[in-house]
Amino acid sequence: MKALFIREKYSRLAYHRFPRTTAQFLRSAENQKWNVEDEILPDMCPCPREGEDPYTTEGIPDDLNYSLQMKDGIVYVYDDAEALKQQQPHSLPYPDLETFAIDLSHVLAMIVDGPTKTYCYRRLNFVASKFYLHEMLNEMAELKELKGVPHRDFYNVRKVDTHIHAAACMNQKHLLKFIQTTYKTEADRVVLEKGGQMITLKQVFDTLAMDPYDLTVDSLDVHAGRQTFHRFDKFNSKYNPVGASELREIYLKTDNYIKGEYFARIIKEVAHELEESKYQHAEPRMSIYGRSPDEWESLASWFIQHKVHSPNMRWIIQVPRIYDIFRSKNIIQNFAKLLENIFLPLFEATVNPQKNKEIHVFLKYVTGFDSVDDESKHSDHMFSYKSPKPEEWTSGENPPYSYYLFHMYANIMVLNNLRKERGLNTFQFRPHCGEAGSITHLVSAFLTADNISHGLNLKKSPVLQYLYYLAQVPIAMSPLSNNSLFLEYSKNPLKEFLQKGLCVSLSTDDPMQFHYTKEALMEEYAIAAQLWKLSTCDTCEIARNSVLQSGLSHQEKKHFLGANYLQDGPDGNDIRRTNVAQIRMAYRHETLCNELSFLVELLGQCWKGQC
Amino acid sequence: MKALFIREKYSRLAYHRFPRTTAQFLRSAENQKWNVEDEILPDMCPCPREGEDPYTTEGIPDDLNYSLQMKDGIVYVYDDAEALKQQQPHSLPYPDLETFAIDLSHVLAMIVDGPTKTYCYRRLNFVASKFYLHEMLNEMAELKELKGVPHRDFYNVRKVDTHIHAAACMNQKHLLKFIQTTYKTEADRVVLEKGGQMITLKQVFDTLAMDPYDLTVDSLDVHAGRQTFHRFDKFNSKYNPVGASELREIYLKTDNYIKGEYFARIIKEVAHELEESKYQHAEPRMSIYGRSPDEWESLASWFIQHKVHSPNMRWIIQVPRIYDIFRSKNIIQNFAKLLENIFLPLFEATVNPQKNKEIHVFLKYVTGFDSVDDESKHSDHMFSYKSPKPEEWTSGENPPYSYYLFHMYANIMVLNNLRKERGLNTFQFRPHCGEAGSITHLVSAFLTADNISHGLNLKKSPVLQYLYYLAQVPIAMSPLSNNSLFLEYSKNPLKEFLQKGLCVSLSTDDPMQFHYTKEALMEEYAIAAQLWKLSTCDTCEIARNSVLQSGLSHQEKKHFLGANYLQDGPDGNDIRRTNVAQIRMAYRHETLCNELSFLVELLGQCWKGQC
Repeated sequence: MKALFIREKYSRLAYHRFPRTTAQFLRSAENQKWNVEDEILPDMCPCPREGEDPYTTEGIPDDLNYSLQMKDGIVYVYDDAEALKQQQPHSLPYPDLETFAIDLSHVLAMIVDGPTKTYCYRRLNFVASKFYLHEMLNEMAELKELKGVPHRDFYNVRKVDTHIHAAACMNQKHLLKFIQTTYKTEADRVVLEKGGQMITLKQVFDTLAMDPYDLTVDSLDVHAGRQTFHRFDKFNSKYNPVGASELREIYLKTDNYIKGEYFARIIKEVAHELEESKYQHAEPRMSIYGRSPDEWESLASWFIQHKVHSPNMRWIIQVPRIYDIFRSKNIIQNFAKLLENIFLPLFEATVNPQKNKEIHVFLKYVTGFDSVDDESKHSDHMFSYKSPKPEEWTSGENPPYSYYLFHMYANIMVLNNLRKERGLNTFQFRPHCGEAGSITHLVSAFLTADNISHGLNLKKSPVLQYLYYLAQVPIAMSPLSNNSLFLEYSKNPLKEFLQKGLCVSLSTDDPMQFHYTKEALMEEYAIAAQLWKLSTCDTCEIARNSVLQSGLSHQEKKHFLGANYLQDGPDGNDIRRTNVAQIRMAYRHETLCNELSFLVELLGQCWKGQC
Repeated sequence: MKALFIREKYSRLAYHRFPRTTAQFLRSAENQKWNVEDEILPDMCPCPREGEDPYTTEGIPDDLNYSLQMKDGIVYVYDDAEALKQQQPHSLPYPDLETFAIDLSHVLAMIVDGPTKTYCYRRLNFVASKFYLHEMLNEMAELKELKGVPHRDFYNVRKVDTHIHAAACMNQKHLLKFIQTTYKTEADRVVLEKGGQMITLKQVFDTLAMDPYDLTVDSLDVHAGRQTFHRFDKFNSKYNPVGASELREIYLKTDNYIKGEYFARIIKEVAHELEESKYQHAEPRMSIYGRSPDEWESLASWFIQHKVHSPNMRWIIQVPRIYDIFRSKNIIQNFAKLLENIFLPLFEATVNPQKNKEIHVFLKYVTGFDSVDDESKHSDHMFSYKSPKPEEWTSGENPPYSYYLFHMYANIMVLNNLRKERGLNTFQFRPHCGEAGSITHLVSAFLTADNISHGLNLKKSPVLQYLYYLAQVPIAMSPLSNNSLFLEYSKNPLKEFLQKGLCVSLSTDDPMQFHYTKEALMEEYAIAAQLWKLSTCDTCEIARNSVLQSGLSHQEKKHFLGANYLQDGPDGNDIRRTNVAQIRMAYRHETLCNELSFLVELLGQCWKGQC
């Protein structure tokens, strides 16, 4: 219960979502009444309507003339220069590292507590067995319900690819064809500048001693295989077509000599396919590294110049955890600088959009942040409130996962409150978490994340798994990606999580590296459905979860899931849109209520001294 | 060795293929020299060239004025009525049931012989371990070879879907859309006649109380799922859209009121997609039941009238093993009648094509026969030379699997010899075998089949598995189909068979029931590649096997695999066409030679009395 209270607190602070049912039980445990007015919801920009210009700079809000300053790695907002001098920040919730560290240590203590582990383990076993019973009893009834739904089936329910990297969002064959086409039509175009020398596409391939016509997916060599299992380093190098970083630079970057034109074109081709499919959406991740403060400007202007917006895409910014690399190259001097490069431009664009028009427009289509890198890398440092402040973090060592997460969360939280005040859209924090490495990553994310990608390590901690269930933290899972990197398909816990009622969705991660067919997301669903013998109701439940988890706007979710989607249980489900049986919805809702009511009851007994 | 000699004999008789390497070793065991001139090869019609009319009735051979008569379930050919009276058949090899029964019992005895089992089990383990070593040593070298091949990769090597049923060759979404389209444009068309009453499409759906616009893949209900596992009966009923046999009649039959127009149209849409893909081919199976002698005429005229031929398709005739059903309905009086209905029209069309023009033309695109039904059904009868002759088989009981196989083989064998004499194309016998049921099925097929579908039960008999390896009997495997019907994906032996060097290919069986994406064959390959972590060389080897196994013509195989494809080992491989590494080809060839040379050596010692 305490862990749930903690997550609720951090969710409310950051405009992250928290499930109604769980909130209602928390209120009842406090002998309070839950009010719908108290609910905190994120704000996402609705998709521009047909005919509307998505890149319009009209109606941009005025300059607030606020002052900004980074302190302890967090951007503080001041009403004016005077307030800055006086160090009286604008009234916004700022995070408190000490409280956070205490909260974190509380949850850390819980997950190793023996009796808690037993309790959670048994409850998880119970809900798994209960679902098995539910299935045996109601499988045919669910199917009958679905058969009765006119015009809606698995193919035309909305599905969001909740975790996909933009630089690998096309499949290998697509990239290959694209490279061949550019070579055929624009061989003499200057595409690179190296040491003042202009290099054409033809020269690039001449240097590589290669004719693109002869290029194959084998020589392109971007597909993951047996060689990449437990080798994240090898996997990362798969982003270089033909092993040549020049080609990555030309085709998969936004800030190159051709101003990211090729990359924009290929992404728009992917977007076009999504629009054609109509029912598929994606949330591609673009990188902001924190290397320099003008990355945002460059990315936003790429986005607008090439008109990359698509109604079937929303954008997520991924921040690679590679401070150590920039530090070793002397690009930055401390960790605070990295954070400043990432977040200050966002605060500036929020305070004074007029001066940062392109960033302001781009941010309408950005719905969240991701934190990415190989989680299996070990860190010697243990994050606590005694850890060096970001300004003091000058060593060449990379800060640990939790340190990254706290500082990203803290800035997003302040930023969201500032943006909410201005009536602008907010952002969700959606880090990669629990793909590998320490179990503590999942504790940090339990506090700081709206939802996570992967979550495999929940397998290893019954307490955390039960908490993720009770708080219905969405998890974007990519079993095909895991299969090539960290965990064999047959050992993937997705099916088990789904049975227990965790809020899981399916995503592709990197179609370029992992998928074979033209429809990567459908391939992901097809394999899961085949291998785990999922029913239509199962796959449609996963698809519904993906929409819930996504950064799509309230309006879109209403359209895709039903007008009452914010309500839990069958009342919130419009079967004509989701194709999820009401029997299933009722089962999930009753089971969650049952688990929560146990806790509330036990807690009441404890307070009365009966336990 | 004896088993190999037996298979070779039956292969030669029927113009089935037998691998050169194995034949060479057999000759050396007899102290003879193998001659390329002695090689028996099937004859397949080359695909009509661009601009040629595939349905032309020009140049059809003349009537031979032969007489035909079925005796003991086998069609005998006589030079004229006089010869028939004298019972002096035309000089063709006719099968001898007694010899066959003896040969069959020999192989049956081998597979239960203790020492033989041990030997084969150990050799199979040996070749599996050897491949594992090969992989560890040569994986990167193979990959390097493939990377060096210009313009050829997994996507553009030829793949043949070696086992697919025409009535389920479209995916469920495709069928759904097709039904909706016909309803939209032709609702008032008469599509059925029932008791003299004309029924329009609209009336059909009105009777079903259903608006096709509201139809979904759920209500269509043709997809296999958890419910079909070990329930072949339930699976069979999935061929009825919406559970309504009327819709199967209208959309998936050739001999209905609309003369199979819809079925032809949908198959042509599938063919069009294959042609678009360029590198994918399919060998759909159409049914001939043996219910009446005019089935062939009807099927051939459907084929020609609707111009169903596609350069990317070849046709296989499947004969369901359902004598018992026809007998119980009194449609036929004995088993011989069923065989007569199936085979006599083919002999007639071969002897007098002028009188059977349509069948003659259609047969150019038919490359083989299949025997289909649920193998797990038990039969009380034990096939032997004492079994009742087909004319005497008048009981309601269904003959056993081996009885069907022998009589189909026997007729195909005589027919092939007759056709070869006339310079016409021959047929291959490619039964479903070893999907379930008794292990003896695989023994019968070892004698009678050119290649088989499924072969799962080879898992259970090391002797048979080793024999299938030594004789390189091609096996079309469909792990996704098995996964829904008989064997979980993770337990499928495909990977193991491939490692050991059995000649396996991948096929879809029934995209309508099993697959999710638009590209069923690619889905099948993708899942196998992902789940078993197959290398590109592995998948391309499977694709190469599929072309070898197929009924494509010699000309096409030369084009797709290389001019020397009939040679074994690296010499027969054109890596620029197959994308299979020469290292792999050499490994396979050396391993097979090694296994065969052991046997020949041992045999030599035995003959010298040294063992």
